[in-house]
Amino acid sequence: MSLVIVGSLAFDTIETPKGRKERIVGGSCTYCALAASYFTSPGIVGVVGEDFPEEVIELLKKRKIDIQGLERKPGKTFHWEGRYGHDPNFRTTLKLEMNVFDNFKPELPAKYKETDMLFLANIDPDLQEDILSQVKKPKIVAMDTINFWIKNKRPQLVRVMEKVDVFFANDEEVKLLTEEINLIKAGKRVLNMGPSLVVIKKGEHGALVLGKNNIFGVLAYPCEDVVDPTGAGDSFAGGFLGYMDRARQGNQSDIRKAAVFGSVMASYTIEDFGIERLKSLSDSEIKDRFSAFKKLLSF
Amino acid sequence: MSLVIVGSLAFDTIETPKGRKERIVGGSCTYCALAASYFTSPGIVGVVGEDFPEEVIELLKKRKIDIQGLERKPGKTFHWEGRYGHDPNFRTTLKLEMNVFDNFKPELPAKYKETDMLFLANIDPDLQEDILSQVKKPKIVAMDTINFWIKNKRPQLVRVMEKVDVFFANDEEVKLLTEEINLIKAGKRVLNMGPSLVVIKKGEHGALVLGKNNIFGVLAYPCEDVVDPTGAGDSFAGGFLGYMDRARQGNQSDIRKAAVFGSVMASYTIEDFGIERLKSLSDSEIKDRFSAFKKLLSF
Repeated sequence: MSLVIVGSLAFDTIETPKGRKERIVGGSCTYCALAASYFTSPGIVGVVGEDFPEEVIELLKKRKIDIQGLERKPGKTFHWEGRYGHDPNFRTTLKLEMNVFDNFKPELPAKYKETDMLFLANIDPDLQEDILSQVKKPKIVAMDTINFWIKNKRPQLVRVMEKVDVFFANDEEVKLLTEEINLIKAGKRVLNMGPSLVVIKKGEHGALVLGKNNIFGVLAYPCEDVVDPTGAGDSFAGGFLGYMDRARQGNQSDIRKAAVFGSVMASYTIEDFGIERLKSLSDSEIKDRFSAFKKLLSF
Repeated sequence: MSLVIVGSLAFDTIETPKGRKERIVGGSCTYCALAASYFTSPGIVGVVGEDFPEEVIELLKKRKIDIQGLERKPGKTFHWEGRYGHDPNFRTTLKLEMNVFDNFKPELPAKYKETDMLFLANIDPDLQEDILSQVKKPKIVAMDTINFWIKNKRPQLVRVMEKVDVFFANDEEVKLLTEEINLIKAGKRVLNMGPSLVVIKKGEHGALVLGKNNIFGVLAYPCEDVVDPTGAGDSFAGGFLGYMDRARQGNQSDIRKAAVFGSVMASYTIEDFGIERLKSLSDSEIKDRFSAFKKLLSF
């Protein structure tokens, strides 16, 4: 089994300076799986309600995403409502309706338990831990989280972190988690908590990848029209892990390319609302933007 | 004549989380000239009072900086007092004593008027314009400014901008100047105001270099101990212009390397208070850090 992604499938109501969208499809798992699908055929674990559109399920299938781990339950799909101001790096959560996500405790399909690459996207760390325990011999386990869990479930979060290889977080989260304002020091503290790699996403300022003996930085693609920043981080993780899954080596060169492909996918996601841009990218669009990053950063 | 730098020589009283220093030598011209001196032999235009230490003048001479344009006047040297919080990107000006800088209106030495590269560091735009008018046929004119002039002398500033080739500013200044929050759009607006190149310094997030048909980005060197951010921007400009002066070509490849050398010099400056680190760097230290940037950014 290829990369398995656990996270949310959701309806998002989003307000940005470019407009407002009611109940469009989003969720960490959705963004991540779509982004990863350009590199590998991931499987997903998540839950949707009766109201989740069948055509999105069809889209996932069309993109060769394995949906055996996707449950449809009576009730409504998880709903998030948020607003972005003029600085796309900051958002306010206006509403959070867990709906079918409440009491979600999946039993992984047998083949998922054999996966050697698992991504625990942003969900309750208790749930992350439970799912991790079901996977037999994963070679790479990656995770993401948000401030909410850092503030409210730190002990559980720290326990999961001890068992993962790659930790994704944005700069604000890493600072909150480690109580350290210098990002390099903060990243090193994360490395002392378990992960062998920490990927710090800095929004419009790009991303830093820190390992025990390596540091790599990539700038964000210069985007003049950020339409909707939602899902950028999950798309980054999807591109990163999808590429790592395809590369199969995991050496320093692969890690660096993975971070650039992560940036490529994030840069497309923010060009339109929701998952719109991730629905039908072409391979050449991905290749072209990878080249654009080369051009942006070479000297 | 090589690169001519016009700006302030100063006493700075600085408070950072790492400590407090009273009346140490600083100033945009001082930082810029010292940084540039590792690449070329710049001339400087500025003014100091009777209290300015002779050993710093000796240091400038030792670094092959031409001081024919440096005046010593009766009275006290320009004095700035500021404080940085835990975020090195933000500082508060606590005191500003112009002293001998008041009514400073230099007549450039004859050989300076022949220079083909002029840097108008952060000073009153009226003064920048006056000095610019004294230089006969400069090939490259660069300038820097601060929020104070953008707010209080915009028409004069805009007039100088029309005549320069390279505009240095930090992200905050570019946004204020163009009233545009998106940095890429803001940079493009600056390009429409005169300069053919805009260098946007983003502190710990690095720098962007925008030309009409080119964009280059460099991350900041990952520094775990920012002791004193003062002079980072001026050191960047010094490294950038010093390298451009040495390279003499000014093609895209030179511009990119110049931005990296700018980042190299800034990264050393912030490792200690004031000009301490810039006093006696070795060529191999500069080369090593350039290589470190290559390693940081290559994929």
